[in-house]
Amino acid sequence: MVHTKFWGRLSLAEGTYRYQQLQQWILQGIIDGRWTPGDRLPSIREICTQQGVSKATVQHALQRLEAQGFLEVRPKAGHFVTLAPKATAPPRTTSRIEAPRPVNVSDLLLDIMDRNAAFDLLPELHAGELPPGIVSLNRAIGRALRRQRGADFQYYDKPAGDLKLREQLGLLLAKRGWPVTPDELCITSGCQHALFLALMACCQRGDIVAVESPGFYGVLQLLEQLGLQVIEIPTSTASGLDMDALEEALGRWNIQTCVVSPAFATPGGALMSEAPRRRLMALAEEYDLAIIEDDIYAESGFSRVPDTLKALDDSNRVIHCSSFSKVLSRDLRLGWISGARWHQRILNLKMVTQLASSRYLQQGVAAYMEEGELSAHLRRQRKLMSEQRDRLLASLLAWPVSVRVTAPQGGLAFWLELPATVDTLAAYPKALDAGVVITPGPLFSASGKYGNCLRVSFSHPWDERRIRALNQLPELLHLT
Amino acid sequence: MVHTKFWGRLSLAEGTYRYQQLQQWILQGIIDGRWTPGDRLPSIREICTQQGVSKATVQHALQRLEAQGFLEVRPKAGHFVTLAPKATAPPRTTSRIEAPRPVNVSDLLLDIMDRNAAFDLLPELHAGELPPGIVSLNRAIGRALRRQRGADFQYYDKPAGDLKLREQLGLLLAKRGWPVTPDELCITSGCQHALFLALMACCQRGDIVAVESPGFYGVLQLLEQLGLQVIEIPTSTASGLDMDALEEALGRWNIQTCVVSPAFATPGGALMSEAPRRRLMALAEEYDLAIIEDDIYAESGFSRVPDTLKALDDSNRVIHCSSFSKVLSRDLRLGWISGARWHQRILNLKMVTQLASSRYLQQGVAAYMEEGELSAHLRRQRKLMSEQRDRLLASLLAWPVSVRVTAPQGGLAFWLELPATVDTLAAYPKALDAGVVITPGPLFSASGKYGNCLRVSFSHPWDERRIRALNQLPELLHLT
Repeated sequence: MVHTKFWGRLSLAEGTYRYQQLQQWILQGIIDGRWTPGDRLPSIREICTQQGVSKATVQHALQRLEAQGFLEVRPKAGHFVTLAPKATAPPRTTSRIEAPRPVNVSDLLLDIMDRNAAFDLLPELHAGELPPGIVSLNRAIGRALRRQRGADFQYYDKPAGDLKLREQLGLLLAKRGWPVTPDELCITSGCQHALFLALMACCQRGDIVAVESPGFYGVLQLLEQLGLQVIEIPTSTASGLDMDALEEALGRWNIQTCVVSPAFATPGGALMSEAPRRRLMALAEEYDLAIIEDDIYAESGFSRVPDTLKALDDSNRVIHCSSFSKVLSRDLRLGWISGARWHQRILNLKMVTQLASSRYLQQGVAAYMEEGELSAHLRRQRKLMSEQRDRLLASLLAWPVSVRVTAPQGGLAFWLELPATVDTLAAYPKALDAGVVITPGPLFSASGKYGNCLRVSFSHPWDERRIRALNQLPELLHLT
Repeated sequence: MVHTKFWGRLSLAEGTYRYQQLQQWILQGIIDGRWTPGDRLPSIREICTQQGVSKATVQHALQRLEAQGFLEVRPKAGHFVTLAPKATAPPRTTSRIEAPRPVNVSDLLLDIMDRNAAFDLLPELHAGELPPGIVSLNRAIGRALRRQRGADFQYYDKPAGDLKLREQLGLLLAKRGWPVTPDELCITSGCQHALFLALMACCQRGDIVAVESPGFYGVLQLLEQLGLQVIEIPTSTASGLDMDALEEALGRWNIQTCVVSPAFATPGGALMSEAPRRRLMALAEEYDLAIIEDDIYAESGFSRVPDTLKALDDSNRVIHCSSFSKVLSRDLRLGWISGARWHQRILNLKMVTQLASSRYLQQGVAAYMEEGELSAHLRRQRKLMSEQRDRLLASLLAWPVSVRVTAPQGGLAFWLELPATVDTLAAYPKALDAGVVITPGPLFSASGKYGNCLRVSFSHPWDERRIRALNQLPELLHLT
């Protein structure tokens, strides 16, 4: 079962506190139905012995689960499960492969983007203070602006981008198994821009591109605009691309390129482990595939940041794409690409479609990284996101129907599978009327699949209004 | 003669000081050979009477020409011409039209861009203070960064861009005969990005696109990357696109799109007057052309900013593209597009290839415009550029060979036509060895034309080192 394998990884996770691991273990136990509402959990002492942890660790974990509403304490009796374990199973994945087709994604995304809403139920809710990591980021950019001298403003930056920023990115990526030199990197206007350059560089009109399904709508839209054909490879929201399905598809169709997000892929936060990664690279070799690695969520990993797929690339065929949008700021519009054998063409395309990136901005971000501010921000951010994920899961468990979901170890969202009768696309305008913007499942497919699925993000704080909006969802989706 | 017509426009120019008009009139007289070295100019009183200006105006103009080395004062005798009028004629334009062809522009541009050198002989020379207009621009952006609140950083901006910025752009464009609403504008990462979106939206692979020749290399590179065919329409560096040639080409080939820069087109700063503009629009109607207006130099006009071509667009077929790069800062990477009948597709393409632009940056620039800072900067900039243009012209007149050139009324560069034996492409690496980056003529053609031409920019101050580099050019080009 997918979530058992997933859990196996969880308990081995490094870098999280023991209490967090324990908390996750208990939560998954409730989701899996090991304990049902009314059940008493093992005693603190039993858990200590069984899991090899201290009493304080167990207390800390139970206290947080109680605060989240999963447990209640009955004096002199112990901890009891309170919520109906309705979010019990991971979403089902289909292993049916459909023939390649031209892409035709709806204008829904433009509407969602027009509402600034890709990751929020309530995009009008911008209130509150900036986190300290963003305050210092903005200061670093402000300093770079004030340091502008002479005729700096009269020159375009080099197409590849600021050397210092590329050096800092090299340091970040070297920690992930990939010693990359600045020459191999090109700065872009975000990851979407990097993916666009990658597809422009390695594909010809009419080529067949394999993508994850469910998978990132931005890639589907790019394929549509570039006149490429798509083949959707079934993908688990826990373990990623179904390698058997990919191999079968490669045998049946002349696929030239595969876009894959090995680390916490949207919509479900799947993490590909090493074996399928090696198998992917072997298949790429056998079928002479270009691989486009969408790495944008990697640094969000709650307990660890996985290595890049690029680290396994012996034959210069993995184009690595990423940006700061998911872990730092979506308003920076700063990403990067490493173009493998297509790098020179990508540099040309970057220049021809955009000339250059802002130098002051790159200098500001490079200084921010150099001063260790990014690392500090990422540490705080991972803790916060893991808490917000737990909070969302707690709310989902209270829904009146069974929801299939996997709790990811990174990324920013859950992928919910609702009863087959639910139509999330039809619910979109109705939810809008209620002031709530949902992200319907069919957005993540080139063929209108996943009508009963929904991506729900935990990237924003669960204040009262967002919790209210979340609690409205079952009614807006006609689950009640 | 082209420069006579050109002069006719000059004397009618509004918005320049009388002394500037007079200075230009005398300079053009020297270029045209009305006065040769050693000649005495008419007396101050004679000029007053003849031109209907005050004595102070004449003195001011003569003083500046003296400072530039064109004149010398001989006490009790008058003002005498000192420099040999070798830059006597405007560059010749060919009226030969060649058949459409696929574009194949060299990697030269990437090399030039890698040296930050598109507009400077000495790109390493960044010293000096920022102009006040850039200091206040950077402050405005810094303020916008400090005003970021709440979760602003967690949202992508709308694909069309910040409403306030689009409103400000609307006010700017309305002054140029085109009352445009914010809904019709989309913010881009500079004008090159806008041109890319325009061509993606209105062309199909293999389409034939008419361009100015000599014309902007960025458009040629785009056509190459997008697999479009180009037809080069002979273009005068004084009056722009040769409309007879365009009409002939339209009759002979199935041209779908025409890219045109009616206001101070690079490389020579040509300005299309109203009659050819109206004729262009009539031809567009007759042949159902999409017109892409590259408007990037318009606000540089020394004496006046011409209307947009878009102002004459009755049938929603002119896509207007521009940015702040040429008149404010090349490091902003902020431009705009108005997509006419293709606007919705352009919004989609903007989103799909880049998602959004930085909101803080747009807010900063909008505030800068709203506070009148941009207008003030443009006023100072126009005066400075007109002075630097005169300075460059004065240097060229001292060259040991005949140079054909038109002094433009806007833009940032001269187009020099040198003797037919000169090979500017071959001179590029030799000049590099001497630390000078030139911009060879063939860059401005899809078919290697203009080997004896050169674009020389006056956008940087003529300090001692740049004057030395400029004076080295005749030797580097084997003119001596």
